[in-house]
Parts: sequence; structure tokens; C-alpha cells
Amino acid sequence: MPKQVDHRERREMIARALWRVVEQRGVTHLTVREVAREAGMSHGQLQHYFASREAMLSFAMDFASEQTSLRVGQGLQQLGDRPHPRDVLRVMLTEMLPLHADARATSRMSAAFVLEALHNENFHARARDGMTQGRSLVEQLIRQAITDGHIAPGRDPAAEAHLLLALTGFTTLLELGVIEPQEALAAIDHHLDRLFLRTPED
Amino acid sequence: MPKQVDHRERREMIARALWRVVEQRGVTHLTVREVAREAGMSHGQLQHYFASREAMLSFAMDFASEQTSLRVGQGLQQLGDRPHPRDVLRVMLTEMLPLHADARATSRMSAAFVLEALHNENFHARARDGMTQGRSLVEQLIRQAITDGHIAPGRDPAAEAHLLLALTGFTTLLELGVIEPQEALAAIDHHLDRLFLRTPED
Repeated sequence: MPKQVDHRERREMIARALWRVVEQRGVTHLTVREVAREAGMSHGQLQHYFASREAMLSFAMDFASEQTSLRVGQGLQQLGDRPHPRDVLRVMLTEMLPLHADARATSRMSAAFVLEALHNENFHARARDGMTQGRSLVEQLIRQAITDGHIAPGRDPAAEAHLLLALTGFTTLLELGVIEPQEALAAIDHHLDRLFLRTPED
Repeated sequence: MPKQVDHRERREMIARALWRVVEQRGVTHLTVREVAREAGMSHGQLQHYFASREAMLSFAMDFASEQTSLRVGQGLQQLGDRPHPRDVLRVMLTEMLPLHADARATSRMSAAFVLEALHNENFHARARDGMTQGRSLVEQLIRQAITDGHIAPGRDPAAEAHLLLALTGFTTLLELGVIEPQEALAAIDHHLDRLFLRTPED
């Protein structure tokens, strides 16, 4: 179905144009007109792919989440067959931060979406559900790590998951140049070192 | 100088109107026209107080920082004469989070300012300088707490300061209802409990 493929490809191309508008000019410039210009097409051509600004933004956010998941997946593959949960959490957390160009594009897209979500019920529910899933995943990883003896049994899996998710707050510090990427990574390693027990196999 | 006072009061009134626009309608609606409407004045009347959108936004951000500092100051006063550094850090951190109406208004103002700062060099420098000051203050508090025996001497003051600042990432989790205020506070207490040693005087 080459036509179907082409349609999807065009939508992804438009989504990347939208990311560039957000990244380079900011969310206040996020209009269908600006995205069409960035994508090198007319307003009418763009409307063939997205009926509304909301539909376009929604797809661009889904695509950003997919790309982030892909990067996390690639990072996890490099950890080998039975990765240590500390390394798994580190990959998940660092791929959420604007530490390289691809991650910066999806991070800014995500920040723009959260901002729209504060004033759009539909987006609010989706952003909340996505983050709640992430929260459950991290909490489950911590529970399993406690069971497997990597984390002390006295730790509260929910509170530890919340702290790890909150560390996405490094985004603002990095974006404004308050701290350098290596400082963020060092602080995250400090945090993970304290969360995990040093076991003989490490 | 009643005229001077009135001028300042009117500017603060406009700044609060700007906060309401950001809080209730979002940063994409942050125009001089919308703020004038919210403040119940004409575009021309508003221009008597602020020559540009940038000047208005700049003042509104300074005013938000002042109000946050005032709230922190009030919180610290309630801790008595020689507050424990753990309590000082807790007040500073929690007043940055949208845990009550006043803090939510200034938190959203701050988020809007950071967003503008990504595409405005002037704002970028100011946002960076403000956060860098905050970072130094937190790091200094941690150094002193190590000297005073409240925090283990092996802790890295810079990394600990970065982690505490990054916990402002709770903002997004709270705004989207991914976690409840009491969950954020419990996680912050977990973190602070691990940072500080339990000393006989506690």
C-alpha cells in the first residue's frame, strides 16, 4: 500500500516541521500557517493531512512519544541481554532530558503539549494518562528490583518512582544553561547510586 | 509620594492580570490586548504603565519572584529563630511548586517566562541568572549543613543542590494530576530524610 505509506510519511514530515517551529520559534508560533510554511506546503495542502491544529498537534505529540520510546529501546538494547535495573532507569530518565539534538526536539514538543494540556481537557487527559503509565512502569521496575535484591526492601516504590519522574525537572536547568549536561548526569548517578544497593555481582 | 505609589500599585495590578491570563488561558494568549482586557483597561491606558509586551512580562516575572520570596520568608519565620536546614530547604522547595493557589499563579508565570526565555536572549540571561543564584544559595546551605554536622561530609554539595532544584519537576506531575500534592510532599520528605543525618538534637 504505497499510498498509505506516503500518507504516513507526509504526516511525519509535517510533525517534524511542527517540532522545528516549537524548538526554534516557540509554542506561541505554533499555528497551522507557520507549520505549513516550515513544511514547505500550502495551508490547504497541510489540511489534507490534518483537519485541525489540534489533530496536527496530537499526532506530533504521539510521534514524539514514539521516537522517544525508540531511543529508549535502542539504549536498552546496548545494555545486553539482562540489563541491570539501575541502567534501565538511567536510560529511561536521560532520554527524557534535552541532552542531545533528537531528545531536545521531543522534549520541547512534550513541554509544548503539557502547556496546551493545561487549557485543553482532551490533551490534559492524554498527557496525564501517558505520564501515569510511565509512573507505573518505573514503580514496577523498582518493585522488581527490590524483589531481586538490587534495592533495599525498606524503600517505598511509589515515592522512589515519583522522585525519579520529578528529576525530569533537569530539563529547565539544562535548557537555560544553569547546569551543564555532565552535571545533570553526575547528579542522576548520585541519586541512582543511593537508590541501589551495591551487590557482589555489580 | 502618592503618585509614585499609585503607579507601582497599578503595575502590580496589571501583573496580576497577566498572571491570570497565563493561568486561565495559557501563554499563547499572552498579548498586551488580552492583559489590558483582563485588567479592565484600554490598550492605551496599559501602555502608560508598560511600553511593550516585553517590559510588561519582565515586570510580571520580577513581581512573581518577589511574591515567591515573600512566601518563602513567611514560611521561614514560622520555623523560629534557628531553623533546621532541612526545614529551610523544604520551605524553599515546596513554595516553588503549585501546591496552593498563590504558588500556582507564580509557578505558571515562571513556566511561561522560561518558555519565552528559550527564544529571547534578554529573558534567557535573566532566567539563567535567577536560577543560578538559587542554585548557589541551596549549595551554600548544604555546605553549611555539612560543616554543622547535619549532612554527612561525604556528600557532594553541588550534586545535592542540583538534585533539589531538579525536583521542581514535580510541577508538571502536579499540574497534570499524575500525582497528588501529598504524594509530592511525601517523596520530597523521603529525599530530605536521606540527605540529612539524624542527629541527637533532632
